[in-house]
Amino acid sequence: MAHHQFQPQVYYSAIGAHEPALHIAPGDTVSTTTVDAGGYDGSNEPVTPGGNPQTGPFHIQDAEPGDSIAVTFDHLAPNRKIGYTSSRIAANVLDFGYIPKFDDDIGRVEWEIDFENNTASPLGLDGPLNGLKLPLCPMVGCFGVAPPRGQAISTATSSTHGGNMDYRGFVEGVTVTFPVFVPGALFHLGDGHAVQGDGEIVGTGIEISFDVTFTVRLLKGRTITWPRAENKTHIMAIGNARPLDQAVQHATTEMVCFLQEDYGLDARTIHVLMGQVVEYDIGNIYDPAYTMVCKISKQTLENIGATRT
Amino acid sequence: MAHHQFQPQVYYSAIGAHEPALHIAPGDTVSTTTVDAGGYDGSNEPVTPGGNPQTGPFHIQDAEPGDSIAVTFDHLAPNRKIGYTSSRIAANVLDFGYIPKFDDDIGRVEWEIDFENNTASPLGLDGPLNGLKLPLCPMVGCFGVAPPRGQAISTATSSTHGGNMDYRGFVEGVTVTFPVFVPGALFHLGDGHAVQGDGEIVGTGIEISFDVTFTVRLLKGRTITWPRAENKTHIMAIGNARPLDQAVQHATTEMVCFLQEDYGLDARTIHVLMGQVVEYDIGNIYDPAYTMVCKISKQTLENIGATRT
Amino acid sequence: MAHHQFQPQVYYSAIGAHEPALHIAPGDTVSTTTVDAGGYDGSNEPVTPGGNPQTGPFHIQDAEPGDSIAVTFDHLAPNRKIGYTSSRIAANVLDFGYIPKFDDDIGRVEWEIDFENNTASPLGLDGPLNGLKLPLCPMVGCFGVAPPRGQAISTATSSTHGGNMDYRGFVEGVTVTFPVFVPGALFHLGDGHAVQGDGEIVGTGIEISFDVTFTVRLLKGRTITWPRAENKTHIMAIGNARPLDQAVQHATTEMVCFLQEDYGLDARTIHVLMGQVVEYDIGNIYDPAYTMVCKISKQTLENIGATRT
Amino acid sequence: MAHHQFQPQVYYSAIGAHEPALHIAPGDTVSTTTVDAGGYDGSNEPVTPGGNPQTGPFHIQDAEPGDSIAVTFDHLAPNRKIGYTSSRIAANVLDFGYIPKFDDDIGRVEWEIDFENNTASPLGLDGPLNGLKLPLCPMVGCFGVAPPRGQAISTATSSTHGGNMDYRGFVEGVTVTFPVFVPGALFHLGDGHAVQGDGEIVGTGIEISFDVTFTVRLLKGRTITWPRAENKTHIMAIGNARPLDQAVQHATTEMVCFLQEDYGLDARTIHVLMGQVVEYDIGNIYDPAYTMVCKISKQTLENIGATRT
Repeated sequence: MAHHQFQPQVYYSAIGAHEPALHIAPGDTVSTTTVDAGGYDGSNEPVTPGGNPQTGPFHIQDAEPGDSIAVTFDHLAPNRKIGYTSSRIAANVLDFGYIPKFDDDIGRVEWEIDFENNTASPLGLDGPLNGLKLPLCPMVGCFGVAPPRGQAISTATSSTHGGNMDYRGFVEGVTVTFPVFVPGALFHLGDGHAVQGDGEIVGTGIEISFDVTFTVRLLKGRTITWPRAENKTHIMAIGNARPLDQAVQHATTEMVCFLQEDYGLDARTIHVLMGQVVEYDIGNIYDPAYTMVCKISKQTLENIGATRT
Repeated sequence: MAHHQFQPQVYYSAIGAHEPALHIAPGDTVSTTTVDAGGYDGSNEPVTPGGNPQTGPFHIQDAEPGDSIAVTFDHLAPNRKIGYTSSRIAANVLDFGYIPKFDDDIGRVEWEIDFENNTASPLGLDGPLNGLKLPLCPMVGCFGVAPPRGQAISTATSSTHGGNMDYRGFVEGVTVTFPVFVPGALFHLGDGHAVQGDGEIVGTGIEISFDVTFTVRLLKGRTITWPRAENKTHIMAIGNARPLDQAVQHATTEMVCFLQEDYGLDARTIHVLMGQVVEYDIGNIYDPAYTMVCKISKQTLENIGATRT
Repeated sequence: MAHHQFQPQVYYSAIGAHEPALHIAPGDTVSTTTVDAGGYDGSNEPVTPGGNPQTGPFHIQDAEPGDSIAVTFDHLAPNRKIGYTSSRIAANVLDFGYIPKFDDDIGRVEWEIDFENNTASPLGLDGPLNGLKLPLCPMVGCFGVAPPRGQAISTATSSTHGGNMDYRGFVEGVTVTFPVFVPGALFHLGDGHAVQGDGEIVGTGIEISFDVTFTVRLLKGRTITWPRAENKTHIMAIGNARPLDQAVQHATTEMVCFLQEDYGLDARTIHVLMGQVVEYDIGNIYDPAYTMVCKISKQTLENIGATRT
Repeated sequence: MAHHQFQPQVYYSAIGAHEPALHIAPGDTVSTTTVDAGGYDGSNEPVTPGGNPQTGPFHIQDAEPGDSIAVTFDHLAPNRKIGYTSSRIAANVLDFGYIPKFDDDIGRVEWEIDFENNTASPLGLDGPLNGLKLPLCPMVGCFGVAPPRGQAISTATSSTHGGNMDYRGFVEGVTVTFPVFVPGALFHLGDGHAVQGDGEIVGTGIEISFDVTFTVRLLKGRTITWPRAENKTHIMAIGNARPLDQAVQHATTEMVCFLQEDYGLDARTIHVLMGQVVEYDIGNIYDPAYTMVCKISKQTLENIGATRT
């Protein structure tokens, strides 16, 4: 159960079977940093080309295809004062043919983090946004493991291996489980957001560099198809695809499997229950692949006496 | 400001320019009942063919195309003890080719309402669901106004006129605003659910007959494209279309217009703000048209000093 | 087997259970006219509001829900010299955020029909289009029967009842079969195009008024789900939905059923065969619902000895 | 203008920046072979794992990001007598919840090529397919260049770099142009089909090993976004995405650009013309990404005097 301090030297903008940056054992904890989506570090200096550059990959000893790994975010926090957002809702979430009319084209917006009050505020904007203070909700946008078939998948998108899911539920305390496709799993992470709206509809959260501490467990022989997650209140299954309908299909089917495999529930119980208690959250709806999160409350599972097998 | 007691005699399974069942004035309140989705009334007797039969239509005096009407649900409550759900997640929210394996095919499930404890429980089910108590959250699944172009649109689906949106935020206290397409607007409502999961993924909530009291205001000359809504904490814009991506597009664009028209915000402020604070909820993902709800917190609008114009 | 001459007096922009304009018997032929999409007649005079106004409905004696009717277009021809097209590809068939840059905004384009040479040419356009002669290919864009559930469906869209399918294979000589949803079927037709590209991607063909002669047969007890069609070379099944993926699903499934029901082929033969010989054509991709046509060559069916049962 | 004989030693199931298998110069011709989708060679022996294994990559001298390469298929022919198809239409092209009922589950079907008569026939099937002779139409299913951003993309799917497009127009004589994303372009090819229906709806054509001869030209400084193609009668633009609607958007937009860039036409001419003459063909609708082909007839371009600039 070592605790590694890891300082990244190289970053990747595709998640794939790159040379491991650090070898760790199941149960180990890693403290490291991530640069922002544009490749700027904690000093706001450019250290690598932009595009959600990833720290890692971390090689998890004994992880083999067919296993899964569970990553818990022990600590997630911006490590500098300045972040950035885009200032324009993406065309793909607006009506066909709808063209916004701006008085000016301000490009990106700079935000300042107030670490004392745990808020973020835009800088240099006139008008109603002047003085806005948004509560921080630090989350990691893009993380995952090397995909199957010798692929290396752009950090602009997402699939079964995770990737750029931009779900604002991926905060400190959450545990995310990934299928393992290559020996060592090869976990990557990056793209921290101090704040983000549902869907990342402007194509950014408040993009900023992060300090991250995470712990990895190995679930030997536990095969899953899509990422799963859990926090204090819910279990979750994540689907990544376009259109959003298909992300719903993947997330819902994975949740059915989750409840069968991990809670030993029969299909009929699952269908009847999910019909009346299921919840969905939207992750990224900006990428090539969209992200949908299917959730079940742990309280409901307790109420029916369903326990982890 | 009359308060009408209305007892429906006829029900419609398409929302259209039917003969008005009651003429009311702007500001009036109506207390009435709705049958369940299968056409069963408060005594659990069949009174009309199934398919989300609608009470109404209510003709609102002076409502003309180009206006909108705001309907507030003052009271929503099941008016009998027994409701029903389907027991099978719809194929369109599961992976292509995924075929659930049930030990038995139980068809629909009967649920009993405990009005004292405000819960619903399935009846006659063995296994883990035996003893389940779900908190009631009464909502109306299908309601809206006569659509444009002489259309009559099935209550199985939804569009700009409202319809079968099955959003579990449409509870007591909410106000929903509809565009007016025909003189009198012709408001219909039905399809009450005692409880429902996000998306109505089994094709039903707990289907039950309702007592409903609602008040209608006329917003003269206020033209909107899609339904809008508000509750104590949020304003909302609703998009109804398939795929879900397009429902997102309609809801998001309508929210941009909502903030421009009703709060006087400029496009740049809206885009920057929505990017970091927008929320989405899923309504129906079972119908021909899916429903997406785009939300902004009223607290955030207050924080930037944005007030209703 | 009467041959009716019918002069329309009233037109509808929703397809529904309107008062029959003419009662005909199975086997009867009707010669009539249609106005153009904008409501202009053979003298290019406005006679009804625009929006694909429909001639009819025609009530077919003895047609009952569960039957189908087969409509053969015996004659289809523009009946005036001038037609119109839009001049802009619709936003929904171009990339998100792609905004065409035109030097001028010319609005609609006027086309002249040369009946001697069977071509259409744009009028008053400078540049490369000056002198263009496109071969005429007269087709009917919007036709169908009254839909189920008391619905009236806008002629801007399409569904199981037919409607605005804009398929350029719907030409003279084709036979299209519709499910019957209401007594008498209530056949409507309109929206003739002298020429049209696949998909109707500018939202119009060359819109023009038509002379039409059609013959209706009644297929008693022959229940179908989606429109089917046939010409000299192919049988076809039509799916109308959005996204296009779902139109594919409807059309393909209907073709499987077509081959099972009408040719008595078993599922395995159909699947193996369709995999290697199926053809798809695109109808409308501009409407709320898109249209996909699934085709099988009659020659192939002959080659395997499959005959109509 | 060398003519290389190339015998592949290694195959890839992701298209990426692999070690070049052969360096060629612009204008060179290569004669080589491809194994079938399952990794079986011209002797029907397994030589590599299945999944559309690719021959190559071929490094084209001087090709740089921002250029494009034009690949002409000089010769395409199956090089053995036996091919295979799946026997089941994919769930994603059938209605949600539609479950085909087969009397038996025959798995894959074996087909024999008759090189004399240029036909393919299924082997060992009873019933109507016994004796079927389908005309050969040899085509390449999967080919393309190394994608951008350090990606390696599975040969099960497609994107801007080409990939598994399964378009039955990719036959002998066609020229396909790809954007260059990495130095040398790195062209891969494989997955030959002796016959294939539109859409590859059973997930296979008649899968077989091929002899292929192709010639590569370098279009220095000619930047394109999506693959383009041309044959004797048409120019084409290819879009690869899901849903099919988005493949339409990419293909249509790329065609607009093609006509602007290569024929010097203005936007208005292009929009008016495409509206009335555009054609679409469907490629793969089985993969994660679907393929749509947007076509314009060369005859039409000649008629308006439009010539390659």
